[in-house]
Amino acid sequence: MSKFNVSTPSGFPEFNPAQERVRHQWIDTIRDTFEAYGFGPIYTPLVEREENLLGKGGNPKEMYVLKRLHDEEGDTSHSGNALRFDHTVPLALYVARHQNDIAFPFKRYAIGPVFRGERAQKGRYRQFDQCDIDVIGSGSLAIENDALMPAVIIDIFRKLMPEEPFQVRINNRKVLLGFFQSLNVAQEDLKQALDIVDDLEKIGQEKTRLSLKEKLGFDEAQAKTLCNFMELEVTDVSQGLALKVDNALFQEGLTELVALQKALEALNVPREYYRFDFRIARGLDYYTGTVYETNLTHYSGLGSICSGGRYEDLASVFTNKAMPGVGISIGLTRLMGQLFDADIIQPDPSGGLEMLFVPADETAIHTCLSLASDLRAKGKSVEVYLEKKKLAKKFDYANKLGVSLVAVIGENEMADQKVGVKNMETGEQQEVSFDDLDGLLSS
Amino acid sequence: MSKFNVSTPSGFPEFNPAQERVRHQWIDTIRDTFEAYGFGPIYTPLVEREENLLGKGGNPKEMYVLKRLHDEEGDTSHSGNALRFDHTVPLALYVARHQNDIAFPFKRYAIGPVFRGERAQKGRYRQFDQCDIDVIGSGSLAIENDALMPAVIIDIFRKLMPEEPFQVRINNRKVLLGFFQSLNVAQEDLKQALDIVDDLEKIGQEKTRLSLKEKLGFDEAQAKTLCNFMELEVTDVSQGLALKVDNALFQEGLTELVALQKALEALNVPREYYRFDFRIARGLDYYTGTVYETNLTHYSGLGSICSGGRYEDLASVFTNKAMPGVGISIGLTRLMGQLFDADIIQPDPSGGLEMLFVPADETAIHTCLSLASDLRAKGKSVEVYLEKKKLAKKFDYANKLGVSLVAVIGENEMADQKVGVKNMETGEQQEVSFDDLDGLLSS
Repeated sequence: MSKFNVSTPSGFPEFNPAQERVRHQWIDTIRDTFEAYGFGPIYTPLVEREENLLGKGGNPKEMYVLKRLHDEEGDTSHSGNALRFDHTVPLALYVARHQNDIAFPFKRYAIGPVFRGERAQKGRYRQFDQCDIDVIGSGSLAIENDALMPAVIIDIFRKLMPEEPFQVRINNRKVLLGFFQSLNVAQEDLKQALDIVDDLEKIGQEKTRLSLKEKLGFDEAQAKTLCNFMELEVTDVSQGLALKVDNALFQEGLTELVALQKALEALNVPREYYRFDFRIARGLDYYTGTVYETNLTHYSGLGSICSGGRYEDLASVFTNKAMPGVGISIGLTRLMGQLFDADIIQPDPSGGLEMLFVPADETAIHTCLSLASDLRAKGKSVEVYLEKKKLAKKFDYANKLGVSLVAVIGENEMADQKVGVKNMETGEQQEVSFDDLDGLLSS
Repeated sequence: MSKFNVSTPSGFPEFNPAQERVRHQWIDTIRDTFEAYGFGPIYTPLVEREENLLGKGGNPKEMYVLKRLHDEEGDTSHSGNALRFDHTVPLALYVARHQNDIAFPFKRYAIGPVFRGERAQKGRYRQFDQCDIDVIGSGSLAIENDALMPAVIIDIFRKLMPEEPFQVRINNRKVLLGFFQSLNVAQEDLKQALDIVDDLEKIGQEKTRLSLKEKLGFDEAQAKTLCNFMELEVTDVSQGLALKVDNALFQEGLTELVALQKALEALNVPREYYRFDFRIARGLDYYTGTVYETNLTHYSGLGSICSGGRYEDLASVFTNKAMPGVGISIGLTRLMGQLFDADIIQPDPSGGLEMLFVPADETAIHTCLSLASDLRAKGKSVEVYLEKKKLAKKFDYANKLGVSLVAVIGENEMADQKVGVKNMETGEQQEVSFDDLDGLLSS
């Protein structure tokens, strides 16, 4: 046996051809939708300077730093680099580099792998694809941009999983923070209050009230007021105005949500795919206004499959300029890995292959190659079995591939210029002249 | 100023949206062609175990090893990993893992980044995309598979650069080695002989003869015989039989080349896109039979844009099984970087964006969003300018984007349900009703 351990490193994913074709289709759909909304792609390295990554939120415990085995020997000019852990820092660096050439608002998308040295566990990866869009303003950014995010998410998931109900949940951190302020939560307790609130849906109102009382000194009335507010079923976000919460930040957040809702309506986004939910906080301090989460209704255990929000400061650490933005990120690998594991997506093993030509013996190989070439020129995906094996072995190959049509060509077929095409699913055989093979495939 | 150096790390590429769209189009074309020939994609990690990479040809001086900043503190189960330097080792590992499930011959493609810590220089990258196909046999692999490689390369580059002449040059290392043997070159000198020969085209026959004499002790007649053979213009490779070289390896290589040529003819590959060239050796010891190089006729300075060959041993280090293969690799990033730099490709900055809606004032924003939404539902790519800026600023944005059609919508347009659409290239304005905008874009 080999002395090598050939398994993939722990936490690093692998997909077989059938799965990988689904991933390609999904990325194509995501990319086309991003483009339809005016987002453009940028290509930035998977590797950035370590200090830049750390300077903008990188967790040093999860960061993969690049070393060379023989750094001491030679050129060390490239040392001090690390793998990117998200698409946001590379975006900030790109904007910092090209701020004078970019047309603002800058609408960019990025699809590709990011790396985090987290403890490996089921459904978590150390390398995973994220699909991000962001709109970056110069100085300011209109609130209507925040409505593009749910519109894009909803457009994408309706195309990817037409049968699968899902909802984007929308909130605004100003509404939450303003409501806390109206209850006289101290400034230094706000972060903790947000964290408690973030768990409300998971642990329920009773435990949340207890936490609020124990950890933040809420009285029963305050805890109840807060929980009741958070669990409001909001169909029209302007209802929030009726609450008459006397806090400027709350009112500002609510005004933003109202504008967002109107823009979503103008965009004709179907109402069943989004709702306002005052419980959504998003853990990241980064976000300052609108926040989003997306859940598959029947698979809430997957967690949020697409999240994001509005932030006031993309790149001041790199540029000293005010650049607010709003963005979302689809955690593609994590989502697809779970959908494959749970058999929610069942990839077709045949891929796009339409026909396999099987030469009965060596004399038929060139005829098969020639027929295959004609069909490829007409846009078909076809293959020729070239190995000198027994016919049974050739059919084993066809079965393993999952290809549905097989054409065996020997002396008689070459003489008659026609072939019996076998449908591998039904077992039926159909006689087709060489010139008509094209028509058979044009399904 | 920021204390951060925001430039990309040396040797790591960046593409702007216009360039990146071209890269996407190229990858789509490459992928579709690979699929049409029956190749399927696999997804393997960018990261593999260091000992596996080193065990199969990894150059320790160029390898990027992953460390965490705080490896000493926590989980170290993932240490000892490194970034892949090609797609071949990940393929060998994938085949070793899945050899019992795979249908052989296994035709797989891989498109994505690989990493090499080479000294950074113009046209060389430390992260670059490679697009690989390989056919892997179990025990044996028919020679006709070797004909698929030029067929695929030629198909791809005719689609990518229809105006640009190029040629795939084909040789077989057995022919070269056999010819050396027939000249009584000692076994231990063969490697050096191949290296000298590899430079023949660059340094010319005179210097090559000198090298052969000085370094390998050739006499004048031997050196002349070898150089003349190597510079033969071969239109039909079976001409080589007329040379009556009395060496079994030579004859075997020539027989393979003849079979390859016949298969290429059966595949209807146009003759002007390939030729046989006995000078091609390929540096890698890895290759044992057919070898390929591809050059753009007018840009020979770019070197080979797609190379590969036949090898006898993909994975014995991991599986102890005989798995011969044949494959090629397109060095995409290097090629595109050079084509961009030399202005051979000029990307369209507008991307696919077809129209920009400009609300004259805030009251028109929702009408614009709604019109945009209708057009997107019909498959169009359109955008709305949402910021509250002066009209001149809005047109600046349109100009910077390079979008060709702009529709300004204000009170009158909303009342009349029609809009003047301005063609930004010609300056012409055309009045179109809201319902007919679709037709304007269906170019």
